Amino acid sequence: MKKKAIVLLSGGLDSATVLAIALQQGYSPVTLCFDYGQRHRVELAKARALSLKMGALEHREVKVDLRQFGGSALTDEIAVPKGRTDGEMSAEIPITYVPARNTIFLSFALAAAEIAGAEDIFIGVNAIDYSGYPDCRPEYIQAFEQMANLATKAGVEGTSKFKIHTPLIQMTKAEIIKKGLELGVDYSLTHSCYHPDANGRPCGQCDSCLLRKKGFQEAGVVDPLIQIGIQE
Amino acid sequence: MKKKAIVLLSGGLDSATVLAIALQQGYSPVTLCFDYGQRHRVELAKARALSLKMGALEHREVKVDLRQFGGSALTDEIAVPKGRTDGEMSAEIPITYVPARNTIFLSFALAAAEIAGAEDIFIGVNAIDYSGYPDCRPEYIQAFEQMANLATKAGVEGTSKFKIHTPLIQMTKAEIIKKGLELGVDYSLTHSCYHPDANGRPCGQCDSCLLRKKGFQEAGVVDPLIQIGIQE
Repeated sequence: MKKKAIVLLSGGLDSATVLAIALQQGYSPVTLCFDYGQRHRVELAKARALSLKMGALEHREVKVDLRQFGGSALTDEIAVPKGRTDGEMSAEIPITYVPARNTIFLSFALAAAEIAGAEDIFIGVNAIDYSGYPDCRPEYIQAFEQMANLATKAGVEGTSKFKIHTPLIQMTKAEIIKKGLELGVDYSLTHSCYHPDANGRPCGQCDSCLLRKKGFQEAGVVDPLIQIGIQE
Repeated sequence: MKKKAIVLLSGGLDSATVLAIALQQGYSPVTLCFDYGQRHRVELAKARALSLKMGALEHREVKVDLRQFGGSALTDEIAVPKGRTDGEMSAEIPITYVPARNTIFLSFALAAAEIAGAEDIFIGVNAIDYSGYPDCRPEYIQAFEQMANLATKAGVEGTSKFKIHTPLIQMTKAEIIKKGLELGVDYSLTHSCYHPDANGRPCGQCDSCLLRKKGFQEAGVVDPLIQIGIQE
C-alpha cells in the first residue's frame, strides 16, 4: 500500500508541481486547501480541479478565516501593489504577507497528518523567488518540523516521525516549471495572480504574475494560460 | 502605556488564572478563545464573561472547525471516558487529545500577536496535572517559541522577540487555585467539565472534573461551583 502524505495545495503553480513530485515519489496524497478569506477565490476551484485531475487520494478544503485578524493585502481591502516600473520586485517583506500564514497552514496539515496516520507533509515554499516571506526559509521549516515532533501523540510515542518536505525550496521559478512539465503538470489549471479580475483572469502586473512570466521566459516555454488566451 | 499580550482563554480554571497573572504582571491582555466545534459550548460563554469581568482590553472568538479532521472525543460524537472506579486518571495520552490543538491555537495567537504589535503570548498549559497531552510539555513550548521567531516578519526584522509564557507549567492544580484566589479570580465563572449536561452543569466524573475536585480539596477550599449549587 502506498504511503499517505498531506500536500498543501493552493491552486498555484508551485503547489501543483509539489503535488506532481509527491506522486512521482510514490505517495498517496491527501490535498489540503485553505479557504482563508482570500480575495482571489478562483484559487479554491483551481486547487480542487488540480487535485482531481492529478489523481490525489482525497481533497480537503479547510475554512480558516484569517480576515478576522486583518493585517494583509491578500485578505483585506487594501490594494495589492502592482510591479514597479523598472520591472523589479521589492526586496522587503511585502504587504501581501499574511502573519503566521504558513505556521497556521502547517499546523492544520500536522493535525490532518496525525489523524490520517501520515508522516509526510509537502509544502511548496521557496527561498529563492520567494518575494521575501520569512516563513518560506529552510531554518523556519526545520524549526517547525522539530516542534511538530514534540507536539504530537504520534511523535512522542515514536510511532511517527513527521517530515516537512519542501522540494522547491532551492529552485528558481524556471526550474520549478521545467520540473513540472517533465512530470506532466498542466499549468493551464493553475492560478498565480494576486489581483485577478471578476472572471479570475490574471492582472499580469502583480509580483506573482511577474514571477510567473519571468519563470516561463527563463524556462523557454510559453505559459499555457497565454496559449489558451487567459493570460496576455 | 501598558504592553499588550495575547492570552489564550478557554473559560477553564487554568486559563482564568493565567489571565489574572498576565494582568498582575502589568500586561494589557487581548483574550483569544477558540470555537473549535467543542461539544461543551458553555466554555465559550464563560470565556467571554471572564474576559469582560477581569478587565481584558479586548476579547476575540476565533472559529476554527477541528471537527472536519475528526479524531478526538472532545469534538466527535464518541464518549468521553468517566473516571475509573479507583479514582485514578489514566497515565496514557487520553482520547480527549485533539491532534495538534495547541499548535493550531498558538499559531493563531502568533498571528494575533504580530498584528497587535504584541510580543507576549500566555497559555495555561501544565506539565504536572496535565492528563498526558504532549503539547503541554516545556520542550514543546520552547520549540514553538523558537519556530515563532523564525516564522514572522517581526521576528526576522528583529522588531519583536516572541515569548510564550506558561506560568502554570510546573504548578499543581492546588497551587494554581491558591494563586488564582490570591489574585481574586472568581472560579464560579469557570468551567472544567468535558461532559456537561444540556444546562452546562458539570458531570463530576470526567478526568477534568476529577482534577478540579482534587485541586480544590488539596488547596483546602470549597469550589465556588459547589457553593452556588452548580457542582455537587
